[in-house]
Amino acid sequence: MLRVGHRIERDKRVTMHVFLTARALSASGAIYSGQKDGDLERRFQAIVSEWGGPFEVKYEESWKKVIKEWKKRGMVCHLTMYGINVDDCLDKIRKNKYILVVVGSQKVPGEIFRLADFNIAIGNQPHSETAALAIFLDRLFEGKGLKREFEDAKMKVVPQEKGKKVVYR
Amino acid sequence: MLRVGHRIERDKRVTMHVFLTARALSASGAIYSGQKDGDLERRFQAIVSEWGGPFEVKYEESWKKVIKEWKKRGMVCHLTMYGINVDDCLDKIRKNKYILVVVGSQKVPGEIFRLADFNIAIGNQPHSETAALAIFLDRLFEGKGLKREFEDAKMKVVPQEKGKKVVYR
Repeated sequence: MLRVGHRIERDKRVTMHVFLTARALSASGAIYSGQKDGDLERRFQAIVSEWGGPFEVKYEESWKKVIKEWKKRGMVCHLTMYGINVDDCLDKIRKNKYILVVVGSQKVPGEIFRLADFNIAIGNQPHSETAALAIFLDRLFEGKGLKREFEDAKMKVVPQEKGKKVVYR
Repeated sequence: MLRVGHRIERDKRVTMHVFLTARALSASGAIYSGQKDGDLERRFQAIVSEWGGPFEVKYEESWKKVIKEWKKRGMVCHLTMYGINVDDCLDKIRKNKYILVVVGSQKVPGEIFRLADFNIAIGNQPHSETAALAIFLDRLFEGKGLKREFEDAKMKVVPQEKGKKVVYR
């Protein structure tokens, strides 16, 4: 099981991007903390119900509780521009089957750095957390993350050289 | 030369993420259209002046003009969930040295699909344009995009297992 943990910010659009990226790249769900946002959850569930799942979004008030609970069973990977090179830890991470990938916001509490099993840099430059998550999952799954088949999808894209084609089931 | 083209939306935060991702992954600049935003440009230039460059941000009112001009010299790759699989076109794209990667917004004009040399899907699922751009550049540069050395940087991260370390020059 791979879940993505995210602390919601004022800008909910970024949280939506994080959820979409997690789903498209084969994470099984996301856990978010900060402020609960029913509207965001409903808009995202509408996408899951059209394009398929499963993908569970869960709210937990305390990010600390989420991380501490997760560590009892698995591994916590925190993506940050201050961490060690992603190439140096992927092999160790792949051995674990129960992974929480934490993508922060601009103000990540210092305690996350201490609690995480790995603080991982997708490059040591200012970045987008959505971009960092995308590259991390793409590399972790060795390119296969994008090839997931979704269950109960009402819509499916038929790839085209020009234009758009969607089939409805 | 690889530039990223983007049409600005109401949500400027996403445009900032697109610029950051383009820079962190070795694009040489970005061209944006839609509404000119001096404040966004200044905030981004502040990052370039701290963390290094070069990275040029240019505004052009007409995205159509940008694409048509680019096509005289190079190749236009449009990232879209409706396109063909990224794995099927990377080899052809790598042969070209003058590439414009267009990442759209939610409402991409149909004409872009016709004008682009390649309409490329980073997975055929609803996605984040920032995530799609990140994976495309990471794969195009075969992982080396993240390793660019920036010129005239005032700050540089020293990778750490725990915590943050930045050196100032």
